[in-house]
Amino acid sequence: MIQKLVKAISEKKAPVVVGLDPMLDYIPAAIKADAFQKYGETLEGAAEAVFVFNKEIVDAASDLIPAVKPQIAMYEQFGVPGLQAYKKTVDYCQEKGLVVIADIKRGDIGSTSGAYAAGHLGAVKVGGNTFAPFDADMATVNPYLGSDGVNPFLEVCKTCDKGIFVLVKTSNPSSGEFQDRSFGDVTLYEAVADRVNAWGSDLMEGEYSNVGAVVGATYPEMGRELRARMPHAYILVPGYGAQGGTGKDLAGFFHKDGLGAIVNSSRGIIAAWKQDKYKEFGEAKFGEASRKAVQDMLDDIRAAVY
Amino acid sequence: MIQKLVKAISEKKAPVVVGLDPMLDYIPAAIKADAFQKYGETLEGAAEAVFVFNKEIVDAASDLIPAVKPQIAMYEQFGVPGLQAYKKTVDYCQEKGLVVIADIKRGDIGSTSGAYAAGHLGAVKVGGNTFAPFDADMATVNPYLGSDGVNPFLEVCKTCDKGIFVLVKTSNPSSGEFQDRSFGDVTLYEAVADRVNAWGSDLMEGEYSNVGAVVGATYPEMGRELRARMPHAYILVPGYGAQGGTGKDLAGFFHKDGLGAIVNSSRGIIAAWKQDKYKEFGEAKFGEASRKAVQDMLDDIRAAVY
Repeated sequence: MIQKLVKAISEKKAPVVVGLDPMLDYIPAAIKADAFQKYGETLEGAAEAVFVFNKEIVDAASDLIPAVKPQIAMYEQFGVPGLQAYKKTVDYCQEKGLVVIADIKRGDIGSTSGAYAAGHLGAVKVGGNTFAPFDADMATVNPYLGSDGVNPFLEVCKTCDKGIFVLVKTSNPSSGEFQDRSFGDVTLYEAVADRVNAWGSDLMEGEYSNVGAVVGATYPEMGRELRARMPHAYILVPGYGAQGGTGKDLAGFFHKDGLGAIVNSSRGIIAAWKQDKYKEFGEAKFGEASRKAVQDMLDDIRAAVY
Repeated sequence: MIQKLVKAISEKKAPVVVGLDPMLDYIPAAIKADAFQKYGETLEGAAEAVFVFNKEIVDAASDLIPAVKPQIAMYEQFGVPGLQAYKKTVDYCQEKGLVVIADIKRGDIGSTSGAYAAGHLGAVKVGGNTFAPFDADMATVNPYLGSDGVNPFLEVCKTCDKGIFVLVKTSNPSSGEFQDRSFGDVTLYEAVADRVNAWGSDLMEGEYSNVGAVVGATYPEMGRELRARMPHAYILVPGYGAQGGTGKDLAGFFHKDGLGAIVNSSRGIIAAWKQDKYKEFGEAKFGEASRKAVQDMLDDIRAAVY
């Protein structure tokens, strides 16, 4: 799977991923009105609005980008109907040829991680049939429980040609509370990075492993260090844009050939129409505003990376 | 919320919680056949079998126990229909008067944790309406991202009278890979325990906080240490039974008055009918086998704790 992503990044010269993390506040009033007309002001109505909103952004920007990253929490907040919208979003993005990185941050004891891995990336058997319930291409994984919480994901990566990104150094302000503390020789995030190398060693595809890492754009020095520490791990970089990271912070996350990292922006793209910078588009042309925001992000990142 | 749980534990003399973590293998053939007859060998069929199975176990054992702990991964593996069965299970257990501890182990950056907290414990607004999508009573939370990944859960605990259990020392074999490593003065799990105290200090109800901790039965020495280190945190103890923990390992997780911890068993209860020990019940009376397994677990734990 990682080579499918690398190829799409190279072809489009676009080491970026759009985070499809819709809040109702980001969705133009007309879309919500239509959805509420059909389904009422209900969870089903919210889910419909979310999917229609996603679809227009994907339609507007899919030729520019290799991948999307739906944050499942933003769907889970609307319960079962929200998760239906999540599944429709995954399917629609794959139909458009995009790699779908499920931002699920799951991680549990072995048997439980096995169920998450099957549900989100792999398949389950029901009687004589096999189903791939959510069937994303890649997923984010939380390492707090150690190897036996990650192994079932590795197994699914092998058997189903999928990939994961393990949380190493997250983008949020308090990520250092535990992650930056030192075990003497290494910090926690470095210890996790070393495990990422080990977990990924059996899952190499060309230069890169199907086991990548999450490292926040908001910590550029650590990004540079972790780039060197995990030479074969693709780095998924959240925190660009609305969370504060900028293009010039990003060079260190990449190898010299411009590969090795993919930078996410969520709010900065999908809610672009709400920014002064893009107000010319107006609410009705929010998809075009998102497209322009992707182009601006590409300019910023290409200047820093290539 | 924690006092509701403590009261139910005290009244039933039952510091135990049944983990509703159904695998299709645990479900008697007759239930699967019925469900597949109605819905085919589909995700919907699997979800129906799971719910019918859960319901019979809850009907058989609800008078003995204060709480259940559905592991959401076991539902998520069946996609959207599985999550419908999860929601039906939560609702049914609450109708039967049980406290529902959602084993979701979520944790993310602030805004995202906010969405998880709203979806699983709190409420979301859609237009002029408010919905509580999954509406469990308590939930497990992963601390890897630090305080700003936990704060939104604390906020929901305050506004909606809910509770959380933060992963401190998990029950799985490789939990020590990161959790046991030392930052010099404290291990990672101790550092998290200290934050549990801080996070819980504003959420006290009587002797206990609505911020509890997960500590595995498989690590009794650490359980004893963590009991002392977090005097006001209720400890949710997985790993009893099938994972290897026994009653005599458990005394140290409790205060001297027999309160302070609640021990989970999943497979050992819900798949009791598959054990030699309970084969007298046969497949048809699997609910009674589960009831007997709860009684045996209560005997074991009461002998160790009271």
